[in-house]
Amino acid sequence: MKNIAIIGAGLIGRSWAIVFARAGYPVMLYDNFDGAVTKAVALISHGLAELKEYGLIDEDPLTILGRITPAQSLEEAVSSAFYVQENTSENIDMKKEVFKTLDNLAPEKCILASSTSTIQTSLFSEHLEGRHRCIVAHPVNPPHIAPIVEVSPAPWTSPEITKRTYDLHQLVGQAPIIVKKEVAGFILNRLQAALLREAWRLVDEDYVSVEDLDKTIKDGLGLRWAFMGPFETIDLNAPGGVADYAARFGDAYADMMSGINYPDWNEELVAKVESQRRKIMPFSEHPERESWRDQRLMALIAHKRNNKSHN
Amino acid sequence: MKNIAIIGAGLIGRSWAIVFARAGYPVMLYDNFDGAVTKAVALISHGLAELKEYGLIDEDPLTILGRITPAQSLEEAVSSAFYVQENTSENIDMKKEVFKTLDNLAPEKCILASSTSTIQTSLFSEHLEGRHRCIVAHPVNPPHIAPIVEVSPAPWTSPEITKRTYDLHQLVGQAPIIVKKEVAGFILNRLQAALLREAWRLVDEDYVSVEDLDKTIKDGLGLRWAFMGPFETIDLNAPGGVADYAARFGDAYADMMSGINYPDWNEELVAKVESQRRKIMPFSEHPERESWRDQRLMALIAHKRNNKSHN
Repeated sequence: MKNIAIIGAGLIGRSWAIVFARAGYPVMLYDNFDGAVTKAVALISHGLAELKEYGLIDEDPLTILGRITPAQSLEEAVSSAFYVQENTSENIDMKKEVFKTLDNLAPEKCILASSTSTIQTSLFSEHLEGRHRCIVAHPVNPPHIAPIVEVSPAPWTSPEITKRTYDLHQLVGQAPIIVKKEVAGFILNRLQAALLREAWRLVDEDYVSVEDLDKTIKDGLGLRWAFMGPFETIDLNAPGGVADYAARFGDAYADMMSGINYPDWNEELVAKVESQRRKIMPFSEHPERESWRDQRLMALIAHKRNNKSHN
Repeated sequence: MKNIAIIGAGLIGRSWAIVFARAGYPVMLYDNFDGAVTKAVALISHGLAELKEYGLIDEDPLTILGRITPAQSLEEAVSSAFYVQENTSENIDMKKEVFKTLDNLAPEKCILASSTSTIQTSLFSEHLEGRHRCIVAHPVNPPHIAPIVEVSPAPWTSPEITKRTYDLHQLVGQAPIIVKKEVAGFILNRLQAALLREAWRLVDEDYVSVEDLDKTIKDGLGLRWAFMGPFETIDLNAPGGVADYAARFGDAYADMMSGINYPDWNEELVAKVESQRRKIMPFSEHPERESWRDQRLMALIAHKRNNKSHN
């Protein structure tokens, strides 16, 4: 077993190819759509050039690109793989089918990981012979820029598989976490959902504009959360630490959130948010702003690395 | 009317003194505790030296410090003020008393703003003759590093006072927002409360460790939120923008959050979080880590400024 196999060469798949190739691993990249891998290689090349520009890779992009090999078949991609990262559509029947094939083709010791953001490991692996080696390794888009990886095993995933998956992501420079029990949305999207629910409500009830709400995060809390998590933030926000914080503010926070009815993201509310966003950023600028976001992320990651004490 | 008056020279008050003095305003600083202002001036001097080190001020720190004058009495501080920023204890009776005195002493056109994080404008201003000029301007600690200011008027606050408060904070380089209607926690702490509630629950139900939960933010979502808000994040996370995002994920997010019972931050849960935090950071390192946080914040602010296209 010698290579990483990336199955599905879309946005996430090609980003994963960069992650593993820049760490020195041989990567086999497969997509069952004709031409998808060729297109992906061009985009990977562009991505590597950007990383170089931001000082996020030391090697020549071509050296890294040289570690990525287009596979002619799924079998070729996985037959010598020790780790598979799957990135096909978010469709449960397709996931089941793909993982059945992967389980048949991949070497016995190979880990079978999915990038899925919505389908728990147990839902696509239950009836497989090799279900003990199936797992979710959920990234934030794009993983070659944002380091977090949510490692979420099924109840039957072998602890050794979970550990090897975690260790691999740590080794290649990502920031893995363990989701100890399966839960919809894993951790990151649950935290996002909790905050968004309140954000939509505050706009719905006209306490604040969309633009101003965004400012409270990007010019306020988000500045801390970019290098500390929410628990470290509150731990440092009370002289006696987190227990002191809970004693001081626990009741006030509970009161603040009690008895709230959250609105659906209904047509009227969506139109309200959409119209405010379109005034801030016309839709025609969407693709350009996506590139801007990734560049800002790269600059921020470079900034964090250059501040040695950022941990 | 010629100066800004800062009432209360603690952590927040002295940070506000820096904000207004570095923008060029004469600042009168008053505290009714003997020696508090002298101590504050020393700490302001230290704060200015740090800002200089991070390239966040161009002027000589002594020039800025020279704009800050200790006031011998509340009357001296406010008698020629055009803007008062009040930073006394979070006690409603004290706020009422202080604002009554401020309303008596300050020139007619002077804005009376409070830094309070928990007491709505209407609660301390209702019975004042000058209630139309009372307002909350709530910062994140410390305001000379974190730019957000939540401007929250009472129903009777004059729109002109709200506008002048907003404009002043914009002018001095802060990032003001308008809280259109009074609401407990304003906007920022409500968003924090919503996220924290889910964070505590996920730890309580043992889905994730405190350390791993923090990683999902600092190595994941927090990276985006440091330069985009939650609405811009989702607007860019669907090809068709925020309405497309709502159509794709609205139901899943609603399902994810439905029927949840949030735990109190009870003794057992607090002990669990506290013990995990103390393993990550012994309590003895708390003061040092607070300084680290402020240095990281300054470095991040400098980083954002140096990326011209950061808005």
